[in-house]
Amino acid sequence: MLLLIPGPVTTRPAVRAAMAQDIAPWDNSFRDFMTRLRDRMLPLAGVGADTHATLCLQGCGHFITEAAIRTFVKPGGKLLVPMTGAYADRMIHLAREAGRVPVEMEIDATSPAPPEAITRALAADPAISHVGLVYSETGTGVIHDAPAIGAAVRAAGRRMILDAVSAFGALPLDLSAQPEIDTVVFTSNKCIEALPGMGFAITRIDSAEAAAGNAGSWSFDLSDILTHTRRSGPGSFRFTPPAQVLSAFDVALDLYEAEGGQPARLARYRANASTLYDGVLSLGLTPWLSRTIQGPIVMNVHAPNDANWNLQRFVDLLKARGVLISNFFNTPTPTFRIGCIGAISPPDMLYVAAAMGSALDRMGIKTRGGA
Amino acid sequence: MLLLIPGPVTTRPAVRAAMAQDIAPWDNSFRDFMTRLRDRMLPLAGVGADTHATLCLQGCGHFITEAAIRTFVKPGGKLLVPMTGAYADRMIHLAREAGRVPVEMEIDATSPAPPEAITRALAADPAISHVGLVYSETGTGVIHDAPAIGAAVRAAGRRMILDAVSAFGALPLDLSAQPEIDTVVFTSNKCIEALPGMGFAITRIDSAEAAAGNAGSWSFDLSDILTHTRRSGPGSFRFTPPAQVLSAFDVALDLYEAEGGQPARLARYRANASTLYDGVLSLGLTPWLSRTIQGPIVMNVHAPNDANWNLQRFVDLLKARGVLISNFFNTPTPTFRIGCIGAISPPDMLYVAAAMGSALDRMGIKTRGGA
Repeated sequence: MLLLIPGPVTTRPAVRAAMAQDIAPWDNSFRDFMTRLRDRMLPLAGVGADTHATLCLQGCGHFITEAAIRTFVKPGGKLLVPMTGAYADRMIHLAREAGRVPVEMEIDATSPAPPEAITRALAADPAISHVGLVYSETGTGVIHDAPAIGAAVRAAGRRMILDAVSAFGALPLDLSAQPEIDTVVFTSNKCIEALPGMGFAITRIDSAEAAAGNAGSWSFDLSDILTHTRRSGPGSFRFTPPAQVLSAFDVALDLYEAEGGQPARLARYRANASTLYDGVLSLGLTPWLSRTIQGPIVMNVHAPNDANWNLQRFVDLLKARGVLISNFFNTPTPTFRIGCIGAISPPDMLYVAAAMGSALDRMGIKTRGGA
Repeated sequence: MLLLIPGPVTTRPAVRAAMAQDIAPWDNSFRDFMTRLRDRMLPLAGVGADTHATLCLQGCGHFITEAAIRTFVKPGGKLLVPMTGAYADRMIHLAREAGRVPVEMEIDATSPAPPEAITRALAADPAISHVGLVYSETGTGVIHDAPAIGAAVRAAGRRMILDAVSAFGALPLDLSAQPEIDTVVFTSNKCIEALPGMGFAITRIDSAEAAAGNAGSWSFDLSDILTHTRRSGPGSFRFTPPAQVLSAFDVALDLYEAEGGQPARLARYRANASTLYDGVLSLGLTPWLSRTIQGPIVMNVHAPNDANWNLQRFVDLLKARGVLISNFFNTPTPTFRIGCIGAISPPDMLYVAAAMGSALDRMGIKTRGGA
C-alpha cells in the first residue's frame, strides 16, 4: 500500500522493524543513542552544536509548533503569519489559543509569499516580534522562499519561526545563514520517512536561553527542554518519550544518508512530482498549481467537472488499487491531493497515475487516456 | 530483557509486532478502528458512552495531565494536590506553569492520603475547585484510596482529576460511582502493557462540554477534542496520531481481556510484588514500605548501608543479567526501585531477586542469601 496522504508516509521495512522492540528510555544505552541522534540532525539544518540544539518533544507537528510559538513569542506578543493555506490557519489558531496575537497577512496562496509584503507588514506594525512561515504548505503544495522571507525579517530586526514539518530533509535549509530563525520545527513522519510520534525543534541556543519563562506551559517549554538536557544529560528526556519512534527515526536517517542526503531526496521527490504531473495531465486532469509553482511534496488536482465525481468513492477505488490518499482537501475549490514523499519512486507515480485512470473509468468519468 | 523501570514495561511479541506497519490515520479503516478502540476502553472505567468519552491525546503522561488541568481548572483556579510523591510534585509544576494555583497538601507519603485531611483542606479554602490525586504514586509505590478521597471531594461539592497513569487497567476504577471525577488520565505504556506515545482521558461528557474555553492551549484542550470527534467523527483526530502505538494498544487490550481483565491483571501484579517482597527480605534488604502498604505496581527498596553501594553500578550489573531498572529514585532517602508491572510473572520476580543477589555479591555487598 502506497501512503500518499502525504504523511505519515510509506516507510522502508527496516524503519518499521525498528518499532517492534521494547526500549527503556532511562537506560544509559538509550541516553547515548539520543545524544548521537540529536547531534546528527544538526547538519541537516546547516548548523553545529556550538550555536544550535535539537530539542525533542513527544507528539505531533501541532505540538512542536505550539511549543515554538509559546517559547519564542511572549504572552500577548504579535506573530505575523503569511496566509499560505491550511497550516498557516493552524498556526494562527495555535497562537490565538496560547494568548499570543496572531496577525494574518493575506497573500495569493497559489504562489510563494512575497518578501516585500513581509517588509511592509513589519514596517507597519513595530509590535510584531515574530514571523511564522510554513516552508512547504501541505494545503496547497506551494514551497515558500524561506531564505528570502527570512532576509526581510532579518532586515526588519525581527525574529522567525519556521514550520518545516513537510519540508525538513528534502528542501534546502541553512540556519547558519539565517540567524533570524529562532527555531525550525518538524516531525518524524514526513521527508525523513519514519513513523509518527515525535516533534523536533532545531533551535538557537541563545534564543532558547533568552526565552526562559515565556511558555506558560511546562510541557511545551522548549527553553526548559534545553535546560533539562544540560542538567540531566544530552540524551535525557523530561517525560517518557516514544522510544520506538526515535529508534525508527535513526534507521531512517541511516537510509537518508546512504541515499545521498538532502540533494538526493529532493531530486527523487522532484522526479516523483514531475512524473505525477505528467500523468495527471495525460489523464486530462488539471493540477491546481502551474508546473513552475508546483512543489515536490504534495500535488493538488482539480476535481473532475463531472456529475459522477465523488471524492470518497475515488479514494475507495484508489485504496482498492493499493494507493491511499486523503479523503479531504484544503484548497478553496474541490481538489484531491496526492503526496510525492515517502519511500516511493517515479515508477510508483506512473502506477498511481494508471490507478487514477482506472478509478475514474470505474466511476464513469471519461479521461483522455480512457476509452 | 525485563523492563522494570517500571514503565515503559515489558510487552508481548504480538503487541510489539503491531508497531511495525505503515498506517494512514485519515483512512476510513483507521477511523473505524479508532471508534471501536475509544469505546472499548470505557468499561475499564465502569462507564458507557452515554455519560463518558475516551479522549485521546498524542504524547506522554505529563501531556494528558496538563491537558486535564487546563481543561477543567479555570485559569487562576485552585487545585489541591495531596503530596503523595514525585508525580504529585509534577502535577503541581504543570498546574503552576499553566497559570493555575496549586495548593500543596502535605501528607505522610508512606501511607495512603487521609480523606479527612482532604475534607479539612477543602473546608478551609472554598476557592479550591478541584483535587488532583495520583492513584498509584510511582515515586513511592503507595496506592491511594481514590474512592474514599473522591467521597470527601464529592461531599465538599468539589471536582476531581484522577491521575491513573500507573494504575489504569490494574487497579479497580468505577467512575459511575464517582461522579465527582471530571476525568481520569492514563497512557498506553503501563498496566495495559503496550508501547509509549499516547495519552487517554476518560472524561465526563457534561464536564467536557462545560469546560469549553478554559484550556488556553489548542493542543491541550480536551473539550475541543470532544467537539472535534462530534464534528468529524468519533474515530477522527485533530492532528496526526502515532497510529502504530494505537494499533499495538488494541492488541494489548485483546490480551488483557483474554487474561481476564482488571481482576486477573491485579492478581498477577500482586503476585509479582509479593514474590519480589519475599525475595528482597530474603536477601536481607528492606523495602521502603511495610507489606500492608506496599502496592502492586512498583517497589522501592532501601539502598544497602554499605560503602560499596553505587546505584549505577547495581543497575549496570542487573542489566548484564537481563534486568533493567531505573538509575534514579524519587524517595527522600536512597533507594532503588523495581517495577512489578508488564508482561512478567512471579517466576520472573524470583529470577530478579536472584539477579539482585548476584549483582550485590559482585559489588562486594554481603546479602543474607550470599556467601
